[in-house]
Amino acid sequence: MTKTMRRWTLDTFGVNAPFSLTETDVPSPARGEVLVRTKAVSLNYRDKLMRESGMGLPVQFPFVPASDMAGIVEAVGEGVTRFAPGDRVISTFHPGWIDDKPPGNARNPPYQSLGGFYPGVLAEYVAFPEDWFVAAPTSIDDSEASTLPCAGLTAWFALVERGKIKPGDTVLVQGTGGVSMFGLQIAAAQGADVFVTSSGPEKLARAKALGARHGIDRNAEDWVEAVYRLTNDRGIDHIFEIAGGPHLGQSLKAVAVHGRISVIGVLEGFDLSGPAGPVLLKSPVIQGISVGHRRALEDFVRAVDRIGLKPVIDHRYTFSEVPAAFDHLDHGAFGKIVIEL
Amino acid sequence: MTKTMRRWTLDTFGVNAPFSLTETDVPSPARGEVLVRTKAVSLNYRDKLMRESGMGLPVQFPFVPASDMAGIVEAVGEGVTRFAPGDRVISTFHPGWIDDKPPGNARNPPYQSLGGFYPGVLAEYVAFPEDWFVAAPTSIDDSEASTLPCAGLTAWFALVERGKIKPGDTVLVQGTGGVSMFGLQIAAAQGADVFVTSSGPEKLARAKALGARHGIDRNAEDWVEAVYRLTNDRGIDHIFEIAGGPHLGQSLKAVAVHGRISVIGVLEGFDLSGPAGPVLLKSPVIQGISVGHRRALEDFVRAVDRIGLKPVIDHRYTFSEVPAAFDHLDHGAFGKIVIEL
Amino acid sequence: MTKTMRRWTLDTFGVNAPFSLTETDVPSPARGEVLVRTKAVSLNYRDKLMRESGMGLPVQFPFVPASDMAGIVEAVGEGVTRFAPGDRVISTFHPGWIDDKPPGNARNPPYQSLGGFYPGVLAEYVAFPEDWFVAAPTSIDDSEASTLPCAGLTAWFALVERGKIKPGDTVLVQGTGGVSMFGLQIAAAQGADVFVTSSGPEKLARAKALGARHGIDRNAEDWVEAVYRLTNDRGIDHIFEIAGGPHLGQSLKAVAVHGRISVIGVLEGFDLSGPAGPVLLKSPVIQGISVGHRRALEDFVRAVDRIGLKPVIDHRYTFSEVPAAFDHLDHGAFGKIVIEL
Amino acid sequence: MTKTMRRWTLDTFGVNAPFSLTETDVPSPARGEVLVRTKAVSLNYRDKLMRESGMGLPVQFPFVPASDMAGIVEAVGEGVTRFAPGDRVISTFHPGWIDDKPPGNARNPPYQSLGGFYPGVLAEYVAFPEDWFVAAPTSIDDSEASTLPCAGLTAWFALVERGKIKPGDTVLVQGTGGVSMFGLQIAAAQGADVFVTSSGPEKLARAKALGARHGIDRNAEDWVEAVYRLTNDRGIDHIFEIAGGPHLGQSLKAVAVHGRISVIGVLEGFDLSGPAGPVLLKSPVIQGISVGHRRALEDFVRAVDRIGLKPVIDHRYTFSEVPAAFDHLDHGAFGKIVIEL
Repeated sequence: MTKTMRRWTLDTFGVNAPFSLTETDVPSPARGEVLVRTKAVSLNYRDKLMRESGMGLPVQFPFVPASDMAGIVEAVGEGVTRFAPGDRVISTFHPGWIDDKPPGNARNPPYQSLGGFYPGVLAEYVAFPEDWFVAAPTSIDDSEASTLPCAGLTAWFALVERGKIKPGDTVLVQGTGGVSMFGLQIAAAQGADVFVTSSGPEKLARAKALGARHGIDRNAEDWVEAVYRLTNDRGIDHIFEIAGGPHLGQSLKAVAVHGRISVIGVLEGFDLSGPAGPVLLKSPVIQGISVGHRRALEDFVRAVDRIGLKPVIDHRYTFSEVPAAFDHLDHGAFGKIVIEL
Repeated sequence: MTKTMRRWTLDTFGVNAPFSLTETDVPSPARGEVLVRTKAVSLNYRDKLMRESGMGLPVQFPFVPASDMAGIVEAVGEGVTRFAPGDRVISTFHPGWIDDKPPGNARNPPYQSLGGFYPGVLAEYVAFPEDWFVAAPTSIDDSEASTLPCAGLTAWFALVERGKIKPGDTVLVQGTGGVSMFGLQIAAAQGADVFVTSSGPEKLARAKALGARHGIDRNAEDWVEAVYRLTNDRGIDHIFEIAGGPHLGQSLKAVAVHGRISVIGVLEGFDLSGPAGPVLLKSPVIQGISVGHRRALEDFVRAVDRIGLKPVIDHRYTFSEVPAAFDHLDHGAFGKIVIEL
Repeated sequence: MTKTMRRWTLDTFGVNAPFSLTETDVPSPARGEVLVRTKAVSLNYRDKLMRESGMGLPVQFPFVPASDMAGIVEAVGEGVTRFAPGDRVISTFHPGWIDDKPPGNARNPPYQSLGGFYPGVLAEYVAFPEDWFVAAPTSIDDSEASTLPCAGLTAWFALVERGKIKPGDTVLVQGTGGVSMFGLQIAAAQGADVFVTSSGPEKLARAKALGARHGIDRNAEDWVEAVYRLTNDRGIDHIFEIAGGPHLGQSLKAVAVHGRISVIGVLEGFDLSGPAGPVLLKSPVIQGISVGHRRALEDFVRAVDRIGLKPVIDHRYTFSEVPAAFDHLDHGAFGKIVIEL
Repeated sequence: MTKTMRRWTLDTFGVNAPFSLTETDVPSPARGEVLVRTKAVSLNYRDKLMRESGMGLPVQFPFVPASDMAGIVEAVGEGVTRFAPGDRVISTFHPGWIDDKPPGNARNPPYQSLGGFYPGVLAEYVAFPEDWFVAAPTSIDDSEASTLPCAGLTAWFALVERGKIKPGDTVLVQGTGGVSMFGLQIAAAQGADVFVTSSGPEKLARAKALGARHGIDRNAEDWVEAVYRLTNDRGIDHIFEIAGGPHLGQSLKAVAVHGRISVIGVLEGFDLSGPAGPVLLKSPVIQGISVGHRRALEDFVRAVDRIGLKPVIDHRYTFSEVPAAFDHLDHGAFGKIVIEL
């Protein structure tokens, strides 16, 4: 007898496109696949963009949103060797990107992620190839673990895999969203000197409690001047560019000689721009970060257990509260928004 | 009895600021300095910008232009250990940048180069600290050697020191100016697959004769589409961005997944801009190249001798023809413009 | 009706263990596998060690020797996406090592190669998972292509993937075997300055014809002293340690400050030894090279086509001459020994 | 009127060569030099080897031992720009090694350190070129600061500059001497998983209190087997080889696939040896660490202040107790031995 399950779907895209809670059969794991019972799903800003526009991806309706989850292996298909029933796992954002480079080329850039090109995970069960999962960390709960595949790995990839930060480096994260809070925690755990820009003393106080040494209130002062003042003009070694658009120009002013700007967000515009002067004279690396590969996620999981990193969750919603969770996403969050099953 | 020498100077900055050929005393090398008899001076586009505007640098008049020279050590000051009279030497573009990072910080970027912050080399003799020079290659003449400190090192630093190119990589240079022709020759000598964009079949033919495998005529077709066609959509691993401004957006379309764009020129604008999509999805490194340090110049000199690189000189002027040489700079050159003494 | 094929097998290990030419069914490609018609097999010194001792690996008899081949895809199993019938392919030495690290750990090091842990390729047909193959270069013939998976990739991995050589570096290879000749050719194609040590002027002359600039006759002089003389005491940036055993101590004397010694062979002993002085004072990297991963092999294939590298083949045997080919291996070869089908 | 000062000197080398406390003039800083009043001197195992044998260096008697000190700039010579009177400074172990490579070549390896090739620092005042000093950290006292130039930088150079460790990596240090304790503290501060081998539960307990997660008692069990057990056979990513000699073979068994062994000490022998098997199959990097350059020391100083690293001092001696301090060195120390002035 086939079991059924519930899942959230969209039948169209749009700013207010309605979510439906529908029933469907629990999938059977095909050869090489594992069936995973979802325990928690974490939302990203990208899930909001997908709902609003579909981001130009070739999607089939009904569309299941969301890319990041933690769960328990319920059953395994033929030939599966990496997991067994009962294993706690998390998803990978870019299925099939194991190491080095993701599939794609200059004309058709890589974009094959869950809850986008591939179906999403906002369902009681998912059946995917075993290669799409990674063992969950043992020191955090399912909701916390569900935040690692996209937001957590993005910060790790920017700072550690690409940035190779070391103790004493200066790191600046913009705002207090999910990626920035992971960046703060990872950088602080490595002995870096962390700066956070945000609006209002409350968020800055919370960021400092998480390990930031300097909070810069954008409402109170020019953040670039504050960086000059706080660093004795030395500037910042690693900047998370979350705002994007012309704001990149500000980061170019704040970056240290031979520093690094990781372009992560585009909240202020899809067209990046900035003056050539600091690009030439200070020679920073400007690099887009598109999450990261599975090998780095495995490194990150090991590190999470080792350094005792506790992902920052703003609010935990129940499975029935998905629409409210997306509303929350609209208003911004301090850290992550999670849906528990 | 003090000897005198001739040198070219500017007494003001401006598009048509006049050059004067004046006499002055041959300097004596102070402690730690060497006196070098100039044999050849190579011009760069930056020398044109300096003449026109002074580039905001704190300059004293009369100002001696130009940064790149080859010459022969005539005399050494007390305590000099690196050179002896008779040694063939070339200048370094950023005096004092020995390795790692140049002096400067986030607020005040590094900018201390010859013929700018420091006096230039368009004189029959110069006396500078011994640390400001490097032994010249033995396989090329003085005029050729004079082109290495800025244009040559810029290409080497972008491709080898930063880019770590390897055989089989694709490299694209824009236009046929000095840096691009060095980039072409260095890349070809390392077994890379070189693409050149230019206008008109003549220049492309000359570029191919120097080792480029693909010439793309910008007058005849969209160069990004040509790259897709010629690389089977794979794109370019290393791009020299010479045009700058919004043209960076074109390079972002042409760059391969995880490729590299070295920002070198700003012919089309001082404000760099481009879409965030390829920055995020293809994760290229975008990095300004501001020439390079002395250790890399020493590596490059060794390589020039080893691979038999012959710098491309468009025209050799005599010392009395300096105004004509600057006019040539205005109209663009195929490779380098050199003044011989 | 099942087709049959011939293959060479061993029924026991030993210095003179006899090879048998036996008939068996042509295998059918299972799901995910490709059936490849063998065109050429290249032998390595390791094949001799396997025949003699089995190298402690868990092997089933009859055992098919050899790891390196080139061939043509004859048929593909269900679900195969990377290859189609008619494609020219080469094998990978470590099946399943795609990128980063091979499977294995501190206690049980990686060792899962073809013609060892896995069956070998000395057969008219092989059926292996599609992931175990790479597209062959287009500019060389099948026999030449068959030499890339082990000897060629070892040299590429040591010099390019690990060593990141650049023009002007000094590279020394010991002897004129397969890996050394690949090292010579790759290094010369990148503008490095290549030294070869060998016995007798004939081999040195052939090595110079292939691109080496310096030949050192070990019978005529102490090779380390020759290196000092030829490099002005600077030493060698990259050394291929082929002799192994206590000979490592010689390489430690010859290596440049911050140079690199790639440990590849153990002809003079399984116990490496050398003085701590140069290890501490010159801080070279000493690194064992165990062939390399598939991604690097793909890079290498692209480079072979680009730089026009022609693998050096000492002798081409027919399929019936396999015992003679192994005899040749016993006596040493200049470059590679290949068996053509 | 010339001031006089006291200093410790040797007039001969030998296991029991006597130290003399002698008077001499306080030196005047020449052009480019600074005069530094010594506040603390830290001893290294190398100081013991120098006393016993002179290590083959061209030394003049009376010889002032020791390389590592912290002090206060008392006066500056003409042309000094990096320091002013009153600045707290520490010495650099290899004077003149600013970045990249130290002076030296294959035949004559770099060896120009203080208290060896150059005179030492066991004196109330020293006058050296300003380039030989680095600003001291602000968060630790003079005695603690004096331990950074050799022992501290060696550990930092091995783990961070060369090893690029990241959170979650495994690090093993041998014994509880100065370099090992720095390695433990730096690795723990970066979220690495630290293993210490030592003899007896007391030292292991102290090491754990400093941040090690695993202590292995060499008297109680085979340390390599313990590593296998504690890491689930994965092995160690970074090993500090302090014992040297044939003990390297043990480290080769314990190292992870693609791990790193930093060769630092030679307590068990000057001839390093080990089996080729794990060198080839696991491809670790084996690299001698000879302290490090000034730029890395500056990075380390910044990190010390940032991560709150407190160097471990076994005992603080007064200036009159130098012979006792050297006796202590003979018997081994937990961390560092310092002489305060």
